[in-house]
Amino acid sequence: MLWGGRDGYQSLLNTNYGKEQDNYAAFLKCVADYADEIGFTGQLLLEPKPREPSAHQYNFDAETTLGFLDRYGLTDRYSLNLEANHGTLAGHSGEHETEAAHSRRKLGSIDANRNEALLGWDTDMFPTDLALSTYVMKCVIQQGGLQPGGLNFDAKVRRESTELDDLFIGHINGMDCYARGLRAAAAMIEHGQFDQMVAERYAGFAADDSIGQRFANGEASLMELAVAAREADAEAPPPSGRQERFEALFNAFAFE
Amino acid sequence: MLWGGRDGYQSLLNTNYGKEQDNYAAFLKCVADYADEIGFTGQLLLEPKPREPSAHQYNFDAETTLGFLDRYGLTDRYSLNLEANHGTLAGHSGEHETEAAHSRRKLGSIDANRNEALLGWDTDMFPTDLALSTYVMKCVIQQGGLQPGGLNFDAKVRRESTELDDLFIGHINGMDCYARGLRAAAAMIEHGQFDQMVAERYAGFAADDSIGQRFANGEASLMELAVAAREADAEAPPPSGRQERFEALFNAFAFE
Amino acid sequence: MLWGGRDGYQSLLNTNYGKEQDNYAAFLKCVADYADEIGFTGQLLLEPKPREPSAHQYNFDAETTLGFLDRYGLTDRYSLNLEANHGTLAGHSGEHETEAAHSRRKLGSIDANRNEALLGWDTDMFPTDLALSTYVMKCVIQQGGLQPGGLNFDAKVRRESTELDDLFIGHINGMDCYARGLRAAAAMIEHGQFDQMVAERYAGFAADDSIGQRFANGEASLMELAVAAREADAEAPPPSGRQERFEALFNAFAFE
Amino acid sequence: MLWGGRDGYQSLLNTNYGKEQDNYAAFLKCVADYADEIGFTGQLLLEPKPREPSAHQYNFDAETTLGFLDRYGLTDRYSLNLEANHGTLAGHSGEHETEAAHSRRKLGSIDANRNEALLGWDTDMFPTDLALSTYVMKCVIQQGGLQPGGLNFDAKVRRESTELDDLFIGHINGMDCYARGLRAAAAMIEHGQFDQMVAERYAGFAADDSIGQRFANGEASLMELAVAAREADAEAPPPSGRQERFEALFNAFAFE
Repeated sequence: MLWGGRDGYQSLLNTNYGKEQDNYAAFLKCVADYADEIGFTGQLLLEPKPREPSAHQYNFDAETTLGFLDRYGLTDRYSLNLEANHGTLAGHSGEHETEAAHSRRKLGSIDANRNEALLGWDTDMFPTDLALSTYVMKCVIQQGGLQPGGLNFDAKVRRESTELDDLFIGHINGMDCYARGLRAAAAMIEHGQFDQMVAERYAGFAADDSIGQRFANGEASLMELAVAAREADAEAPPPSGRQERFEALFNAFAFE
Repeated sequence: MLWGGRDGYQSLLNTNYGKEQDNYAAFLKCVADYADEIGFTGQLLLEPKPREPSAHQYNFDAETTLGFLDRYGLTDRYSLNLEANHGTLAGHSGEHETEAAHSRRKLGSIDANRNEALLGWDTDMFPTDLALSTYVMKCVIQQGGLQPGGLNFDAKVRRESTELDDLFIGHINGMDCYARGLRAAAAMIEHGQFDQMVAERYAGFAADDSIGQRFANGEASLMELAVAAREADAEAPPPSGRQERFEALFNAFAFE
Repeated sequence: MLWGGRDGYQSLLNTNYGKEQDNYAAFLKCVADYADEIGFTGQLLLEPKPREPSAHQYNFDAETTLGFLDRYGLTDRYSLNLEANHGTLAGHSGEHETEAAHSRRKLGSIDANRNEALLGWDTDMFPTDLALSTYVMKCVIQQGGLQPGGLNFDAKVRRESTELDDLFIGHINGMDCYARGLRAAAAMIEHGQFDQMVAERYAGFAADDSIGQRFANGEASLMELAVAAREADAEAPPPSGRQERFEALFNAFAFE
Repeated sequence: MLWGGRDGYQSLLNTNYGKEQDNYAAFLKCVADYADEIGFTGQLLLEPKPREPSAHQYNFDAETTLGFLDRYGLTDRYSLNLEANHGTLAGHSGEHETEAAHSRRKLGSIDANRNEALLGWDTDMFPTDLALSTYVMKCVIQQGGLQPGGLNFDAKVRRESTELDDLFIGHINGMDCYARGLRAAAAMIEHGQFDQMVAERYAGFAADDSIGQRFANGEASLMELAVAAREADAEAPPPSGRQERFEALFNAFAFE
């Protein structure tokens, strides 16, 4: 696992931004070559983090890191190790970061931490957020597990928590948080309605011979889309996004 | 209820900052006098919000608004109407804002909304956060209720939620969120351990004839405190803040 | 100078919020009494900072700190030591914090630092922002100087700046930044147009026997204001805030 | 110019994240094909913006948008239209966004606005920041201009600026800001020291037959780098990043 805390800048003024990214990619190539050379079969991971210690780090968030891997032809060799804490520093929710990696099948491992959403540094607290653990575990189940990665408690008790008990309680409560998330996610998937509702929302891109399907396949032209849009306007209003219904259903499982 | 969206500035450059606060206080005095004159017996409320529409609003958050009321002698006439959404815009959690008002017995009414913590504007979503509703209802119970205020759903469905059902589901799920919070808070108070643990943490300021009690009563001098601190250092290490234990216990009730 | 980094909380759950503020005020009272006792004639200063190391600190920003002093009757004994860096962490510009203290004549001393506006921790860089130094020095001139306080370079070179020269250049450039700010502010005040434009904007509250003056003096009722507002509506539109003109004039001096 | 305000999500719960990005790319492909079909020879532009109106937009910032273009093979067909305002909403400085696009030669056009750095929405104010305009114009000169793009004042006077004069002053002051930036950048480039200092900092990757050059060319192995690093440690300490010197030199031109 490589965390690019030094692969960033403190000031743009003294920085050759393009050169640094080229160099960073060259280094990651060296690492991958070395792994091959010694017959290493584990996965190689990058851990996005936007800042701290640098003012800006190149592996800013999941999307930026995946774009970086794509650009330098390294996507097949590296997956992501995500930390919700780092996502919020980049202006994203932990759920967003998980989804961004999961949708590309590059969710390799997870630092199961929690942060104070409004603090601007990495607090590495033990996880307590059931909505987040449910969302994360739903992605994990759907991609068939995390192996060879896992859930890593890169968390620490607060500085003021000076008793031995605190350490145990932090770990137990954190592990319970993900255990409950796993059960909630499994129940949600088994029940089926949540995923069914998502599928219905995108059904227009899947119907045989529809303009939606042809568009998704790259077979429709802008002119055809314009005609189809004009016709659709004359018909029913667009269907609801049903966000409140999704939230209610998600909560019914997460906080069962 | 007065919300100071116009009582702020867009730019400091064209603003007489002190004069504007004097004027705002003069206006609130006029309002209170008029209420007396017509025999109005309801409560008068200010709703803190840091910004939007202005770049800065004078009633920035609960503490700033209470400080403003203290300074102009208006604390007895006005209470606060709080919205968690506005707290996060000011860099505070919704829990913090509630506590800041509750600790002064100035929690007058609540806009029971939720926001996206990382967006910089007021999203006014229906509440879904059980930890927040449990915390808020615990304060409400402990101060003997909110009357004559209440929980106000100043929330709206998302723009993409275009069906009639969405409106009902949003309200029902939001109301359930606070009903669950009420039950969790009542159970936590009845159980007693949580409040007991807080009381224990501050016991040193309550023990009869202790330096802690004398300090809290304003009867100890800096020299006495220095002597006491030196002696305390020689004894046991400071007791743990036990944050992880508090979090585990809180969650056990909030997500029962 | 007292900086309340320990006078805050890591978690609301284990915290008696009201009790802590009472205790903090009791401590500041002890300090002031001790100063009297030993015949200390310097000024006592509080340095607002919203967070770091704590998750929340009670002296969050200038306004919150002044409200705290007012509430506990300590306003006459303490002034503020401000750092622009701490203001941005609280969601305010450095100019705002300066103005908030200056408008109450409580601007006691200045940490002349600069931060990266978008980083969530205290970077303590050497100042380079001429607009900020011009604004600050304008306040300083208008209140007749900072004595017995001053401009304090609580700044450090970056960790990567490893040569002796860097230390000199940082200090020289930082001092030049405030020297230029002083000259720009003095020229702006001497020229007079900027302050004249501000005064004109508030002229309506100063005209003899006007409703504005009577309102500002607390002599107008809400009913009189309602009548006056209705009449004013029938007349000319409200005058322009002229923000762009203020910005152009300010820049003409700051970047002369 | 396409601005992806609708190409984002309000909630992850009802969203097929991967599918939406595929669809967005399919649409951009349609647009490019249509441009070819009608013989359009202008440039096609995307304008990154992280949020507003959506809670998250896929073209979050310059890097994410470039990664998106790379992934879908659209990099040759689209360049970026940047707005400093959107960069700060994404947690970046306007300078960063400019550099990210410039380093890939994808800086196509500029919305010459300014924002309040600490507000969470798009304020579209007229530009007044000489450091930003100097940095931007330096990139523009170095890439040989912006044609066929340009500087676009997608700015508006404040709502309170109700006089006709305000509109002229806003435009004139904004244009002057970029004219001064152009002159400062041209002088800095002509003078040469600034760029020379940057080149020196990276000289180690350019020296003939050096390990640095071989690394940058992808010819060095991890083992060779380890050996070289061990040897380098035994020698002189790493050279200074000289950030304060860069800042002083930059300011000497920007605020000449």
